[in-house]
Amino acid sequence: MINVGIVGASGYMGGEVLRVLMDHPGVDIAWATSRAGGRIEEYHPNLYDSGIELIHPDRVSACDVVFLALPTEASICESARFLSLGAKVIDLGSAFRLQDRATWERVYGQTHGQWALAEQAVYGINELHRADVENASLIANPGCFSSAAILALAPLIAKGLVDTERLVVTGISGTAGVGAELSRAAHHPEIGNNLVPYNVVGHRHSVEMEQELSLLAGQAVSVHFTPVYAPIVRGILAVCHAFPVKSTDRDALLEQYHAYYQDAPFVKVYDLPRETNAAWQYKPYPWVSSVVGTNYCFIGLDYDAERGRISVLSVLDSVGKGGAQVGIENMNLMCGLERSSGLQRRGLHP
Amino acid sequence: MINVGIVGASGYMGGEVLRVLMDHPGVDIAWATSRAGGRIEEYHPNLYDSGIELIHPDRVSACDVVFLALPTEASICESARFLSLGAKVIDLGSAFRLQDRATWERVYGQTHGQWALAEQAVYGINELHRADVENASLIANPGCFSSAAILALAPLIAKGLVDTERLVVTGISGTAGVGAELSRAAHHPEIGNNLVPYNVVGHRHSVEMEQELSLLAGQAVSVHFTPVYAPIVRGILAVCHAFPVKSTDRDALLEQYHAYYQDAPFVKVYDLPRETNAAWQYKPYPWVSSVVGTNYCFIGLDYDAERGRISVLSVLDSVGKGGAQVGIENMNLMCGLERSSGLQRRGLHP
Amino acid sequence: MINVGIVGASGYMGGEVLRVLMDHPGVDIAWATSRAGGRIEEYHPNLYDSGIELIHPDRVSACDVVFLALPTEASICESARFLSLGAKVIDLGSAFRLQDRATWERVYGQTHGQWALAEQAVYGINELHRADVENASLIANPGCFSSAAILALAPLIAKGLVDTERLVVTGISGTAGVGAELSRAAHHPEIGNNLVPYNVVGHRHSVEMEQELSLLAGQAVSVHFTPVYAPIVRGILAVCHAFPVKSTDRDALLEQYHAYYQDAPFVKVYDLPRETNAAWQYKPYPWVSSVVGTNYCFIGLDYDAERGRISVLSVLDSVGKGGAQVGIENMNLMCGLERSSGLQRRGLHP
Amino acid sequence: MINVGIVGASGYMGGEVLRVLMDHPGVDIAWATSRAGGRIEEYHPNLYDSGIELIHPDRVSACDVVFLALPTEASICESARFLSLGAKVIDLGSAFRLQDRATWERVYGQTHGQWALAEQAVYGINELHRADVENASLIANPGCFSSAAILALAPLIAKGLVDTERLVVTGISGTAGVGAELSRAAHHPEIGNNLVPYNVVGHRHSVEMEQELSLLAGQAVSVHFTPVYAPIVRGILAVCHAFPVKSTDRDALLEQYHAYYQDAPFVKVYDLPRETNAAWQYKPYPWVSSVVGTNYCFIGLDYDAERGRISVLSVLDSVGKGGAQVGIENMNLMCGLERSSGLQRRGLHP
Repeated sequence: MINVGIVGASGYMGGEVLRVLMDHPGVDIAWATSRAGGRIEEYHPNLYDSGIELIHPDRVSACDVVFLALPTEASICESARFLSLGAKVIDLGSAFRLQDRATWERVYGQTHGQWALAEQAVYGINELHRADVENASLIANPGCFSSAAILALAPLIAKGLVDTERLVVTGISGTAGVGAELSRAAHHPEIGNNLVPYNVVGHRHSVEMEQELSLLAGQAVSVHFTPVYAPIVRGILAVCHAFPVKSTDRDALLEQYHAYYQDAPFVKVYDLPRETNAAWQYKPYPWVSSVVGTNYCFIGLDYDAERGRISVLSVLDSVGKGGAQVGIENMNLMCGLERSSGLQRRGLHP
Repeated sequence: MINVGIVGASGYMGGEVLRVLMDHPGVDIAWATSRAGGRIEEYHPNLYDSGIELIHPDRVSACDVVFLALPTEASICESARFLSLGAKVIDLGSAFRLQDRATWERVYGQTHGQWALAEQAVYGINELHRADVENASLIANPGCFSSAAILALAPLIAKGLVDTERLVVTGISGTAGVGAELSRAAHHPEIGNNLVPYNVVGHRHSVEMEQELSLLAGQAVSVHFTPVYAPIVRGILAVCHAFPVKSTDRDALLEQYHAYYQDAPFVKVYDLPRETNAAWQYKPYPWVSSVVGTNYCFIGLDYDAERGRISVLSVLDSVGKGGAQVGIENMNLMCGLERSSGLQRRGLHP
Repeated sequence: MINVGIVGASGYMGGEVLRVLMDHPGVDIAWATSRAGGRIEEYHPNLYDSGIELIHPDRVSACDVVFLALPTEASICESARFLSLGAKVIDLGSAFRLQDRATWERVYGQTHGQWALAEQAVYGINELHRADVENASLIANPGCFSSAAILALAPLIAKGLVDTERLVVTGISGTAGVGAELSRAAHHPEIGNNLVPYNVVGHRHSVEMEQELSLLAGQAVSVHFTPVYAPIVRGILAVCHAFPVKSTDRDALLEQYHAYYQDAPFVKVYDLPRETNAAWQYKPYPWVSSVVGTNYCFIGLDYDAERGRISVLSVLDSVGKGGAQVGIENMNLMCGLERSSGLQRRGLHP
Repeated sequence: MINVGIVGASGYMGGEVLRVLMDHPGVDIAWATSRAGGRIEEYHPNLYDSGIELIHPDRVSACDVVFLALPTEASICESARFLSLGAKVIDLGSAFRLQDRATWERVYGQTHGQWALAEQAVYGINELHRADVENASLIANPGCFSSAAILALAPLIAKGLVDTERLVVTGISGTAGVGAELSRAAHHPEIGNNLVPYNVVGHRHSVEMEQELSLLAGQAVSVHFTPVYAPIVRGILAVCHAFPVKSTDRDALLEQYHAYYQDAPFVKVYDLPRETNAAWQYKPYPWVSSVVGTNYCFIGLDYDAERGRISVLSVLDSVGKGGAQVGIENMNLMCGLERSSGLQRRGLHP
């Protein structure tokens, strides 16, 4: 059994790590911390009477793997500490996601205190970096929008099928992405009947997308990304548009996606036929609700032959495959466990 | 391994049985039927590429346990058939829930074709009928509101603590309870910003509640039940009021509930303290969201010393503990499996 | 034209007063204050480019009517000030709602600095106190749940039709009732898929209900009230149960309600027939969505002849008929304007 | 007073025409039809006891203006009939929206029986075609997504600021756009926690957008449009991306938009400043909730100087400015009434 600790278990990411690891057959939860104290059900009422206790961060002990769900500064500090104690570290925050120091410092508006760690960290989209993840000591778990867009666009970019200057992504997110901290954008009276665009240009995840897709392209790419909050709790839909360099069709694209993700158990290429009758207009594409609570990313697509456009739709849960659960998938790979251990359960319907 | 078949797997109840049994360590899914045919993801997009196929009902084979998710008439017919083939049958519908034939025929407005089966059926609230469930061949799985209200009120009734003539229950339900069939009450433009009372008097589940609570009371009880649809998908909150025969207090009641449910792993008595500051006003009571997707029922309560009233709040998922999952719990008991096998995962937060 | 000022226009109640008065044919908005400053659309994006400016409270001028949307302490202080300047005052808060000082001080946990004002204030349910409202200088605008429950139960109580000891009310409210201040109970990730019971016993509005219904009954009544938050924004449904002193029927009750409210233009007794087929199960009762954004209260009911229970369903908007708009109706009455001036528009469908 | 008839008043568009015209100071509602019969509140519970009756279509009388909310075939037929009776006709459907017959017949998959009417019809975006609307006898009321996208992009196209080949639009819509007819995509259990992309390529409104924007551009343009249903009831957000032909900045663009829409009372260019602190990340852009129930379209925008992209966000209500209410605005213009008569009320907050 692997011993796992969670630093910052009172927030949504830390709570999700706890919830999933409770049922993980290869893991013992060594401890979970919260600076404010209190019973776990004050933070996570779903975990009422689950036997889990929150401890003060001062009381942590050594363990095999540590998940960090912390503000940036604290993540950097705690990563260094736990790595020096011999633990593998999975950082659920943004401290180590970028490979260029100047870019990181500009995007996050601060100086990075331990850049050597960032250089050592592996970006945790394991479909792109599996071998590195397996050998990593420190994982920079990817951003939720980044995961959705990168998984959606990677096959097109890797095969040079599209114009890399004009990748257009609208990301529609539930409010779990806001986090547990109260904010006006997530105040129910404001968002309950609303669609709220925000960070319309310059969202930090744009840079992650460009970093990873540029690596695949072998040249700099531009991702034109705009996020919107919608009144669902969990889940992200990335609506991605790309312009093909030569004409193609839906079936050929689906085949290429299937091939690209043939070894990726948690990426499902959604290939239902596109019928012309009205009852089918929404069936050929993946639904956000299908992946809520899971580590799955479903990807569908279509091709507009008349205008020359590929539209790719990807859905995932921002605290599942876009957050805590992909962290656990990375842990499985780092520790030699079955990749899908603890992660197989499907989403709800309805 | 137990071989299990599901008749009527295209609806919400049947789909939930499938979803949960996929991860059940002691079960093989033998088959799942749908009269209309098609790929499973046309009905349950969450089960895309899960390896499950729907077959025509004519193609079923013998198996150990059969779940029925069918209209009443069909349930009666199929129960008889599968029982005669030696299977244990769990009927998720309402064909066998009442013990009095005249009442059943009045409430359901039809003649019951096989009353001998109803007499043999065990009402599937296993917290009240565990021994009978273990020995049953035919389970009448309880109604969703019935489960919520019966579990909430049973300890008060069993101990004779309250006036049995004036049990008042407001049941607030998500739309999953409507089922997969389209209806105006579940049309999103109508219910999306709405609260819709319906069947304000005479809801069929009232009779189930009265049947089970009368058994516990040893005398006829009256349940004054009104249901309301709210714009959530899964989950029920039963707000139950009872008038005590002598004065009591919250702590004493919580203790009695803990004692009553000490052997019930899926009923959790929610005992967070009642603080007086504003931040705590909603914390001492269970939340519907905590049990969505699970087999848990959380029960909280409070006592109004000034006016002499006990209020009990119970939450469960109408297709979880109020439907398909309690059916699986009953299957576990009937088949000598671990009671909680396949059912332990907690709900999401957020 | 009446000159009207609004103190505290950055919150939901103050914003609704502004929105409705903008279209009121007999009113000039003299000023609207906010201590924090800023453009109005930072608080109320619906009022973008509406020509309304927020001013600092120090800059207010004399006017005919002042609405107060303030914390209790400030309400008391500002009421005294504006009354002394000759304005009529409509307090949207709870400073003057109770007639018994000891009760008020116990319920609100503080000493009341100007009880003489409370004695002078008229409780603003104008269906019960029309003449007093017309002659009032100071209106204590009623609580939202109080309005829903009092309007629902008043005809039964006034005519002595029911047991006054066991009036049971479940109040289901949207999150607008929480107000603009951020709180965990209204954080979308928490409430978005949830039903949250709170203040299960002892909600402050219980006392208002008992005060007003006791006046009608000529004796003390007990209201057993439990509130629940549901994930809608505006709107309240009060599910009220009462036990009749002698048997009756639905039609007789509807007739009595029609008679009671025959002069009340904003209370509509909802009398659709109760058919037995499934398509009709939810149609005979009022829907919350129908009254959102309006000054209407719709009231429906049913009678359980088998068990002896009257169930009354009332719906209103907590910032409409349950808040700002009834305040404007009261203003119309106080100022000799047409009662329904500025208030007639119906709710949306869908 | 203008006499107005509504054909097809049981659906959402017809109901909205009724609701708004009830308060229109220059209009008498002559009649409203529904083939199925019944009381109006069976279809529109918000209009309970409003004095409006539904009549059979056979009983209509002559009047000044007729609104049609009908299937395509019926619209064509009824338009001809009412025009011949001397009425002005506003068709809320899609029978007359396209100017090219071959395109119309391909897109709608049927032969158009009265193309002469289509040639006479004026496309009802009055910000682009005001003079023609004033002189029209037959208005082709625009599609909801079309209105949102055309209003958002018109200033850029009219001034030749952007690449006309790569206009990318993600349209996010509430479920009111589905209409009153039941459909699985609008079944609450399916959409309640979901985001559902549909018609990912080839949505019919794409062609309207291209028709109108091509007229402005003086050359063919390509609109790459993908719609998504989100679980709100009313309201559309169009997230539009365009690539500038030369670099610009946010302030310059806002100024150009203000100039373009200076005479358009219902298009509001949303110009709140873009601050860098977190509390402001969502404030500079319009919210869908602000325009629900209204005839307003709010338009905001931003510019990504680093990547060279203009993002325009427009919000409107699909049955308001995107449907019935713009029809009433067109009626006002056609009949020489004040353009904003009956339409000025602002949206709700919260």
